[in-house]
Amino acid sequence: MYWSKYFIPTLKETPVGTEAVSHQLLLRAGLVHMLTSGVYSYLPLGLRVLRRIENIIREEMRTAGAQELFLPCLQPIELWRQTGRDQVLADVMITFEDNRGRQMCLGPTHEEVITDLVKNFVQSYRQLPVVLYQIQTKFRDEMRTRFGIVRACEFIMKDAYSFDRDQEGLRKNYQLMYEAYGRIFKRCGLETVVIEADSGAMGGDVSHEFMVPAPIGEDTILYCPSCRFYGAVTQGQQEGKPCPQCREGTLQAQVAIELGHIFQLGTKYSQAQQAQFVDVDGVQKPMIMGCYGIGVSRVIAAVIEKHNDEKGIQWPQGVAPFDIEIVPLPGTAESEGITDLANRCYTYLTDAGYSVLLDDRDETAGIKFNDADLIGIPLRITIGKRNLAEGKVEVKKRGTGETLLVDKDKIGEALLEISRGVCLKN
Amino acid sequence: MYWSKYFIPTLKETPVGTEAVSHQLLLRAGLVHMLTSGVYSYLPLGLRVLRRIENIIREEMRTAGAQELFLPCLQPIELWRQTGRDQVLADVMITFEDNRGRQMCLGPTHEEVITDLVKNFVQSYRQLPVVLYQIQTKFRDEMRTRFGIVRACEFIMKDAYSFDRDQEGLRKNYQLMYEAYGRIFKRCGLETVVIEADSGAMGGDVSHEFMVPAPIGEDTILYCPSCRFYGAVTQGQQEGKPCPQCREGTLQAQVAIELGHIFQLGTKYSQAQQAQFVDVDGVQKPMIMGCYGIGVSRVIAAVIEKHNDEKGIQWPQGVAPFDIEIVPLPGTAESEGITDLANRCYTYLTDAGYSVLLDDRDETAGIKFNDADLIGIPLRITIGKRNLAEGKVEVKKRGTGETLLVDKDKIGEALLEISRGVCLKN
Repeated sequence: MYWSKYFIPTLKETPVGTEAVSHQLLLRAGLVHMLTSGVYSYLPLGLRVLRRIENIIREEMRTAGAQELFLPCLQPIELWRQTGRDQVLADVMITFEDNRGRQMCLGPTHEEVITDLVKNFVQSYRQLPVVLYQIQTKFRDEMRTRFGIVRACEFIMKDAYSFDRDQEGLRKNYQLMYEAYGRIFKRCGLETVVIEADSGAMGGDVSHEFMVPAPIGEDTILYCPSCRFYGAVTQGQQEGKPCPQCREGTLQAQVAIELGHIFQLGTKYSQAQQAQFVDVDGVQKPMIMGCYGIGVSRVIAAVIEKHNDEKGIQWPQGVAPFDIEIVPLPGTAESEGITDLANRCYTYLTDAGYSVLLDDRDETAGIKFNDADLIGIPLRITIGKRNLAEGKVEVKKRGTGETLLVDKDKIGEALLEISRGVCLKN
Repeated sequence: MYWSKYFIPTLKETPVGTEAVSHQLLLRAGLVHMLTSGVYSYLPLGLRVLRRIENIIREEMRTAGAQELFLPCLQPIELWRQTGRDQVLADVMITFEDNRGRQMCLGPTHEEVITDLVKNFVQSYRQLPVVLYQIQTKFRDEMRTRFGIVRACEFIMKDAYSFDRDQEGLRKNYQLMYEAYGRIFKRCGLETVVIEADSGAMGGDVSHEFMVPAPIGEDTILYCPSCRFYGAVTQGQQEGKPCPQCREGTLQAQVAIELGHIFQLGTKYSQAQQAQFVDVDGVQKPMIMGCYGIGVSRVIAAVIEKHNDEKGIQWPQGVAPFDIEIVPLPGTAESEGITDLANRCYTYLTDAGYSVLLDDRDETAGIKFNDADLIGIPLRITIGKRNLAEGKVEVKKRGTGETLLVDKDKIGEALLEISRGVCLKN
């Protein structure tokens, strides 16, 4: 991609009214734009990050045996009356009456819709288990939106649902999802803490939250610096008390952001909505359900929160919008040679399968470097007059700041070598 | 994909209350499911078709120089007041007041939002042209939904927007989109008719509609069987009158479905919303806009409407949910050999880059064949006892019904040959 033809509206100044670093950098790097409080557009660069995270999720969902579908945003409120959640979620649910007089809502989540769908098609134990998921926009009428895309009125979630004939099947699918979640966050460059959690409005007995300690969090968790034990505040633990796991440590409070939450729902929804199947013994039984959510837009914020310095974002390779940025610094006389090398380098690396951004704008070195640091592509190739006079170009890793000079005629090979071993494959 | 592990709830009976063939087949082939009138879920097979069409659109948008972003569904109504379209679209716009007392709506289209976004970032002629698009869910509060996903309350659209400094730039981008649309529909297996159209609620002077003659259409167009001239009814043409293009023909009315509509908007939105730039002469001018829509969900219905027989769908290769379906017909004694061959064939073709569905269900040949015809994968490989006794398997093209017997030890090569030349590459 050539920067001059791409839409990356970077900002020099920190936007007013932003407290979180991730929120500031999301706006400054031209990743998102606020339409109105709590409602954001994903600009081309931000959408690329979103898609990379979505594709990591898709791969891991496939490994966990889940199949993708796509459920509607519009939902009849009568479905929610079956489970009583029209009341439970009344504060945040957006509702309206349509032209035909139907009471409708915008889905804040999809348990009722998926249960209704599966009960239409599954009648026998032979058709179970069924594990389905979607990546979709959800809506919550938040009074207090915060930290940009972290707590918004419109946001993107991955929600998966499992339907089993027995508890054993649920435990198995729950375990598969638990493991998939670990892999997803790791591939996004995030170290998560898993804690047993309260099932809240979802219901069910067992649930786990995948948290990342970060100032954009809205939850407080307890941890022990000695043994790295983590626990939920609500589970009877308390700050300052001795850690239950080890003798040395006392528990400390830590703010964390919830990125994923998985639930063993049991039969709460299938009983309320009569989603039953005929078991091998001929008896009608309610399906045993689990549900598994990831706040996809939140993951972007958490990644930025964890990977930045004073100059901008430092994308981990797995979710970076581009793998490599090429920065030619044309002077006056020798500019054609520089531009030509930049273009050849672009073609070579693109053909080699890397996604490459070439900053071909007619801007100063200072502006180009600042923008490069701001948008945070993992590898930067600088093609400038001084190094080129000695037949060299500079390769810099955004994460560590390391630089090395590479022979201009071996730029492709050198980069492939670097990217393979050190930075691009993580 | 193994059918037994996949969620394809096919239906034997034609669902009540469906008039259009495409609507019936969408439901019967397990592609979509109706949540409530005008609101549909895409099941895994339907989502695969949707994604293939989306990816064709993405490739052609890239070729036309457009960049993808993702705008919100939620929109403040005050944006719409700037253009007066809160009144024009009042009948179909879903509106509500949120918890903070903001008047919001669900986007039936995004001209106002994109204009607001671009005006925030573009100040100079040097930043133009900008061409942006998204693939996104739109909402219309339809009183009379029809033909399933054709006229629905929630549907998927591709909408692109061009911003230029002058009329010449607009004409160029309009032409690029016009050509991209031709390629998109052709790749989807659709022959479209392009007619000059009324700009309606969008505004602007020039606009073209991409129509497919089909009974699910809601428009009437005129055509001349002699010279294949097409015209809009609204343009002063009339059924039964002589064709203006040739001497022999008289105009006949034909029902057609609109799949795409492109508009030269001019300055309608940029003036109302003050989206201005400083031109090379230092003068502030409104940006010159175009907008370009495709009803993505509608394309699926149109493809089915044009590609089916009494047994089911006949997917064109470009948008088929899978390239190849393998149907093993295990008997009693030799079933292991058949299953084993089916699995090896699956692995071989998957490794060769084809998407393959293997019907491994414990069902009769009749049920498997009926379902295969219904879901309409372009190539079917049947592995049965009789042919296998002679070392052969049967390959059948869903589109033409042609069959041929292939040596079981050369199944891979033969299939690659068939698919290359005849059916899979179109």
